[in-house]
Amino acid sequence: MSDKTWKTGITKIEPGKISVKGYDITDVMEKLSYAETVYLILKGELPSKAEAELMNAILVSSVDHGATPPSVLGTRTVMSGGNSLNAALAGGVLVIGDSHGGAIEKSARIMQEWATKDGDPAALASELVDWLKSEKIRMPGFGHRIHKVDPRTAKLFEIANRLGYSGRHIELCKAIEKALAAKLGKPLPINVDGAIAAVISDMGFDWRLGKGFFIISRMPGLLAHAYEEMTREKPMRKLGPLPFDYDGPDYRDID
Amino acid sequence: MSDKTWKTGITKIEPGKISVKGYDITDVMEKLSYAETVYLILKGELPSKAEAELMNAILVSSVDHGATPPSVLGTRTVMSGGNSLNAALAGGVLVIGDSHGGAIEKSARIMQEWATKDGDPAALASELVDWLKSEKIRMPGFGHRIHKVDPRTAKLFEIANRLGYSGRHIELCKAIEKALAAKLGKPLPINVDGAIAAVISDMGFDWRLGKGFFIISRMPGLLAHAYEEMTREKPMRKLGPLPFDYDGPDYRDID
Amino acid sequence: MSDKTWKTGITKIEPGKISVKGYDITDVMEKLSYAETVYLILKGELPSKAEAELMNAILVSSVDHGATPPSVLGTRTVMSGGNSLNAALAGGVLVIGDSHGGAIEKSARIMQEWATKDGDPAALASELVDWLKSEKIRMPGFGHRIHKVDPRTAKLFEIANRLGYSGRHIELCKAIEKALAAKLGKPLPINVDGAIAAVISDMGFDWRLGKGFFIISRMPGLLAHAYEEMTREKPMRKLGPLPFDYDGPDYRDID
Amino acid sequence: MSDKTWKTGITKIEPGKISVKGYDITDVMEKLSYAETVYLILKGELPSKAEAELMNAILVSSVDHGATPPSVLGTRTVMSGGNSLNAALAGGVLVIGDSHGGAIEKSARIMQEWATKDGDPAALASELVDWLKSEKIRMPGFGHRIHKVDPRTAKLFEIANRLGYSGRHIELCKAIEKALAAKLGKPLPINVDGAIAAVISDMGFDWRLGKGFFIISRMPGLLAHAYEEMTREKPMRKLGPLPFDYDGPDYRDID
Repeated sequence: MSDKTWKTGITKIEPGKISVKGYDITDVMEKLSYAETVYLILKGELPSKAEAELMNAILVSSVDHGATPPSVLGTRTVMSGGNSLNAALAGGVLVIGDSHGGAIEKSARIMQEWATKDGDPAALASELVDWLKSEKIRMPGFGHRIHKVDPRTAKLFEIANRLGYSGRHIELCKAIEKALAAKLGKPLPINVDGAIAAVISDMGFDWRLGKGFFIISRMPGLLAHAYEEMTREKPMRKLGPLPFDYDGPDYRDID
Repeated sequence: MSDKTWKTGITKIEPGKISVKGYDITDVMEKLSYAETVYLILKGELPSKAEAELMNAILVSSVDHGATPPSVLGTRTVMSGGNSLNAALAGGVLVIGDSHGGAIEKSARIMQEWATKDGDPAALASELVDWLKSEKIRMPGFGHRIHKVDPRTAKLFEIANRLGYSGRHIELCKAIEKALAAKLGKPLPINVDGAIAAVISDMGFDWRLGKGFFIISRMPGLLAHAYEEMTREKPMRKLGPLPFDYDGPDYRDID
Repeated sequence: MSDKTWKTGITKIEPGKISVKGYDITDVMEKLSYAETVYLILKGELPSKAEAELMNAILVSSVDHGATPPSVLGTRTVMSGGNSLNAALAGGVLVIGDSHGGAIEKSARIMQEWATKDGDPAALASELVDWLKSEKIRMPGFGHRIHKVDPRTAKLFEIANRLGYSGRHIELCKAIEKALAAKLGKPLPINVDGAIAAVISDMGFDWRLGKGFFIISRMPGLLAHAYEEMTREKPMRKLGPLPFDYDGPDYRDID
Repeated sequence: MSDKTWKTGITKIEPGKISVKGYDITDVMEKLSYAETVYLILKGELPSKAEAELMNAILVSSVDHGATPPSVLGTRTVMSGGNSLNAALAGGVLVIGDSHGGAIEKSARIMQEWATKDGDPAALASELVDWLKSEKIRMPGFGHRIHKVDPRTAKLFEIANRLGYSGRHIELCKAIEKALAAKLGKPLPINVDGAIAAVISDMGFDWRLGKGFFIISRMPGLLAHAYEEMTREKPMRKLGPLPFDYDGPDYRDID
């Protein structure tokens, strides 16, 4: 419980002057894209051209996934209860936990831990899949509830390929897909979360930031849903829950 | 943006000593009920016996209302996304806005504004109902989506009656019910929110605290739902939204 | 992603009739205290007289702890940003995480795991303290930043004692205090979180509910702070953070 | 409380295919910037080149403002309490209310209401400033706590100018600045919120989306602060509140 001065290294504020990681905000506004700014503020340095384009593709890829994700339900439910726009967005962000949007983080963690080991990606991937099996862990970032093949994965890797951008994590990620198919006897393709996990890992981002990229990406989608709820629906309409039955104690008396 | 010392008058903390509104916390633990403590911390003084019993009945009355309220959906959705217990409870509280749980506040506001006017309750109520009609406002705290007659209203007023507790707001509230029935030609009975609004107004609480009493009351219910979700359901199950269709633009090309 | 009917066993709602765990809400309002209702809705059964009194003391004990806890900062900061009462309360609940208010949960977990082992409390406690030392874990629920001796602990155990209420967890808890003092060479007394953890464990509550009891208890305090902020302070006043310095990159140019 | 199918027009999901406002997500990833995607998802159509560049400058402009904004305090406090990254971000978003980040919304509302009136901008602005004075309203989006001249305003208008992008709202905004200076006798310059309000109004966005643009813009900053708190600070450190005194009741006895 010390009152000592603490340190922050993100943005410097002086009267009439704002600099983000050392760069004047007016220069940033003039010369950087939003995606480059995200990279800068989290990494501390400017991205290469390839990194800038990939970061943009990442942030665009998960901008919305329709009305079914639970975070949309969170945002719409808060809005429907008669609350402000920021509360509705906070409600959506609050839902994005380990089971929803958490795969980037978990997938990146595994890739980052295994990528430091010696060996070529194929051998590592094979060993990793055996380890997952023995630990009964489902590899996060692979497979999807709705998409057999996630179109966003192919596009993200295509862009990386075109730009000649690849590293140990992307290679490991692709090797895991092959090893999973071989050992499971059926394909369990990389989904967008797994692909993002591989790319941000090659960019050198800490896996603990994984959920953060997803949240930045999904924010415009949550905003669009909040706005639709605000302008197209009545308050307190029935959004859920789906049909349920009471199975608790029967009527009884106190005493 | 001043750094001057500011004031707080709720709880005094010294090493080994805690006092709430001047009362030693160990005395409060020994002698006061939770309901009396709620009254004390918000009002600054101890309640009478009647006020203590009524405050308890108020806090108990809204402890839960099954799985349908949107705040339950908020809590369960956050929990289902793979989040912590406190995040799930925060998610439920976040939903309790103007359209859900907001009736106590709005009803108390109207009663507190009208109770200061001259005239007997019946005359005031008649005037109030005419004003509501001309302003096209639905009187908050009257009528219920599910209950034709809210059993909690009758019980709360019965307890107040037994204890001989009544004041201008309770009288005005009952008069409004009569005036509404007379002018609408059909009953629009006081619901539990309206009854609570009347009682806390007679206790002298600011209407702006209305939602707070509802939230304290509903907290154990939200906790019970969070715990059920945690222990009986799988993460990311489908809780909502109810069936929807896409009616946005058809497929098209960029450029 | 099934749409099948799911089950809930908390509250049954029918037109004009509400029952909590089988008990009619009007009976609950008439005959049960708020503390008894909390016990009922989470446990499914009515508490004994001793359990009712202890549950009340628990819920009262942590009702507020002045302006310093981070949850108060959370609530006041949200209110100060120009938000609604429920958003401010949600903001406070959101702060109550593993490092703030999390000790009940963690302490109860350890006690519940060790209480199932064979042996008398003193021997178990000695073994537990050795284990904590070897794992370099600080026993949660013991020691306090401000109070050398937590007055709430003594009172809670005094009430339990007066009511003849004790069980294996309370005994283990007291034995841990002795073992810690003996092995550390200086006292590390049970704080209110540790005491609550022991009592709710003897009541048979799952440790995963620990944070929930704390949140219910603290809600009136957060409400009082939100109301003070709303009525005594201007929006956007400086609440924090305490003094800081920028230590990020110096001014530089893009390109 | 209808269970009828409801409509959403944002994103269409089919197995293996995702389209945002009709555009295939893989095309969007390939061809659009994040800023263009934000415009698209909220407006339903693609922006012009000028609009795309301005939207990017808007989203970059408010990416962070150092450690003092209350939303940073909210995010850091939630993180410091021992919570997940998404809860910390939600905590920050929750703080962004009417008094913090609310100026874009309020400023855009006034500009959009006045821009529909007849008359040239200078005459309208003069009338508007008189009206503000008579209503004792401070024009939102003008003046700043720290910056006498907000460098982001000049840059945003410079970009608009270079691109030949201007409309009735930008003109009105600049005329208000002149009218305020003339009538107040001292400058009250447009701040970044006012400038953003003018530009999004000329783009045709509903003022009710104002806070949304600010939140999207600020998200990377909140993430950077959450990450700094996670990696550079200990849990439960003292972030606030600034010095306070207790001024409540003195010690007293119950009964």
